[in-house]
Amino acid sequence: MTETGGVEAPVNEDNAALAITREEIFAGHEGGKLSVSITAPLDTKKALSIAYTPGVAEVSRAIAADPELARRYTWTSRLVAVVSDGSAVLGLGDIGPSASLPVMEGKSALFKNFAGLDSIPLVLSTQDPDEIVETLVRLRHSFGAVNLEDISAPRCFEIEKRVIEALDCPVMHDDQHGTAIVVLAALKAATKLLGKPRGGLKVVISGAGAAGVACSNILLADGIADVTVIDSKGIVHSGRTDLNDVKAELAARTNPDGRTGSLSDALVGADVFVGVSAGTVPEAGLAAMNADAVIFALSNPDPEVHPEVAAKYAAVVATGRSDYPNQINNVLAFPGVFRGALDAGARRITEAMKLAAADAIVEVLGDDLAADMIVPSPLDPRVATAVAAAVARVAAE
Amino acid sequence: MTETGGVEAPVNEDNAALAITREEIFAGHEGGKLSVSITAPLDTKKALSIAYTPGVAEVSRAIAADPELARRYTWTSRLVAVVSDGSAVLGLGDIGPSASLPVMEGKSALFKNFAGLDSIPLVLSTQDPDEIVETLVRLRHSFGAVNLEDISAPRCFEIEKRVIEALDCPVMHDDQHGTAIVVLAALKAATKLLGKPRGGLKVVISGAGAAGVACSNILLADGIADVTVIDSKGIVHSGRTDLNDVKAELAARTNPDGRTGSLSDALVGADVFVGVSAGTVPEAGLAAMNADAVIFALSNPDPEVHPEVAAKYAAVVATGRSDYPNQINNVLAFPGVFRGALDAGARRITEAMKLAAADAIVEVLGDDLAADMIVPSPLDPRVATAVAAAVARVAAE
Repeated sequence: MTETGGVEAPVNEDNAALAITREEIFAGHEGGKLSVSITAPLDTKKALSIAYTPGVAEVSRAIAADPELARRYTWTSRLVAVVSDGSAVLGLGDIGPSASLPVMEGKSALFKNFAGLDSIPLVLSTQDPDEIVETLVRLRHSFGAVNLEDISAPRCFEIEKRVIEALDCPVMHDDQHGTAIVVLAALKAATKLLGKPRGGLKVVISGAGAAGVACSNILLADGIADVTVIDSKGIVHSGRTDLNDVKAELAARTNPDGRTGSLSDALVGADVFVGVSAGTVPEAGLAAMNADAVIFALSNPDPEVHPEVAAKYAAVVATGRSDYPNQINNVLAFPGVFRGALDAGARRITEAMKLAAADAIVEVLGDDLAADMIVPSPLDPRVATAVAAAVARVAAE
Repeated sequence: MTETGGVEAPVNEDNAALAITREEIFAGHEGGKLSVSITAPLDTKKALSIAYTPGVAEVSRAIAADPELARRYTWTSRLVAVVSDGSAVLGLGDIGPSASLPVMEGKSALFKNFAGLDSIPLVLSTQDPDEIVETLVRLRHSFGAVNLEDISAPRCFEIEKRVIEALDCPVMHDDQHGTAIVVLAALKAATKLLGKPRGGLKVVISGAGAAGVACSNILLADGIADVTVIDSKGIVHSGRTDLNDVKAELAARTNPDGRTGSLSDALVGADVFVGVSAGTVPEAGLAAMNADAVIFALSNPDPEVHPEVAAKYAAVVATGRSDYPNQINNVLAFPGVFRGALDAGARRITEAMKLAAADAIVEVLGDDLAADMIVPSPLDPRVATAVAAAVARVAAE
């Protein structure tokens, strides 16, 4: 398939709603979306002699003697590597490193645009966890933080854990925690609006991949006791023998009533539905939810339930789409999280930082909070600043 | 050692000559020397939807179907990775990846400044050739070309060879070939000025590391039959039993008269001295050279012989220093070489491209050729353009 024809690829619904053409998309990617600039002109012998030889030798000697100076005299203190193996790219699946690169360039562009951070995409021609960890260890001194991106589950859990352990710098798999932070923020805003205490909510999460597992974990960490997770085989419960380690561990901490069955079974009496899978929700299941239900149908480009259908059964509806209100978009979280962690010189992104990030997103809404405004616009420039400040504050504590 | 004191490090002669202070050097490196920019604003929902989801998925699908499109729709077609293991950094030696980063950032800045290429420094926490090659293979789809930098000899020869074989993109160890290209250009200009045919020259090269080996090779490729190389033990000849593979191979192709002995022995009756070691040359040796001798004393910051002393024995003198005429500086070669190779979509940097690059550097001089102008100024913006055009022309042939 090329941009001029060949195999037909339908322009998806969301593109159509924004009136974006294939021509506009490809024109927007011509030559890539990133460029490197120099921070000072190199137009005199003196400038050259400072930035390169012989002057630079003094700086290298200083860092050799005191490695902490690298933070001050290189770009690493604001440099995020966006790292992917191309195994779970958007809804496209395992398309490999080269085809994933436009997505990673886009991610790096978002880091710059929203948080003023420099970012370089690094795409890997291996999907072996040992090799991915090893490669990042070898590259450690090239960057200041690592955003893992679009790595398939369940490998992503092991890889993130091992990279965090191996590198003394902020590391986060955004498909997990970026999504989870914004889902928590949106749920906090929705329940505040509806006057519902979160502790007693019954939450159903459809999807047990990267986002589903991380959403479960952050909601549990927030104090919501009744979370039930659904995978392609139905409700995740400890009686199942087909669970991988991550799901088995999840089964032990979720589904307190020990339910079994399908998504529809789980939705009976539920207060919140969070869809982070590519599936669909039967309308009868939604009808069985409690009054003042909250529905987050986040699959992209096709939500698990169309927002107009969801609105029949819920007081608050959110999607991942930019053409409906309440867009749950990771960009509300990751730029500020990394900026805050780097600003503070943190060596880890902790659970407390993630919770603080969610709170900061809600606070930005202020009096604008409404059923069609439970999260700020992805373009709201206040968000990354607020999130960064909150994360840096936690890091300093 | 920090910039504010601790161990005293003398500001070297060259800095002093340019009147650069330590304060200016460190101020010039504060926060690093590179930054990433985005090529289009991301200030509307539409712009976000083109650069990131959902629009970017169309571009990823297109590249998955036709990998050649990555050249067109990502930044890789103009992206050079500057890769070092920090093992032979400037004259500082094995200072490791983190301390080498300011040098690599500087190199990336030169790529941008002189050739308009984007460049990212990648410093490796391993000096194992297998691991270095393997790491670059895993990162292959992240960049369009590789500039190997400041890797110690003899590992640099094996590593460059293996990286060239493993990656289908332009790869060059600049310490070898950048230096060699400019030395050949300078020697062509000097002999043109002196009216000496190059074929009959007797050339002595002091140094059998990265630069010495590459200079020998390019001069032999240019048709100069009588090249003699000196290492720390004296003249490299095939009777020696202490030579590594690279030097043994060099012994077989150089020193046609089978000379033995010291640098001074080699200089008797020599026409050209090229110094690319950290040693010194006895003045008596220089006095034994032929009339109209050429002396390139390229060690930095301390040339093998001071240019004012060299001038007593030579018709043309060059150094690596910016405060004397005829600065032999790699920056005359590498930006244009990589730009030309990338522009042409070349998969290799060939010997013919290197020879063409040297010719292009000489041609830029035109009528300005003089004993104190055998190479253009490193700041001359015409050089990279001319070199790139020449390299691309050869690539197209």
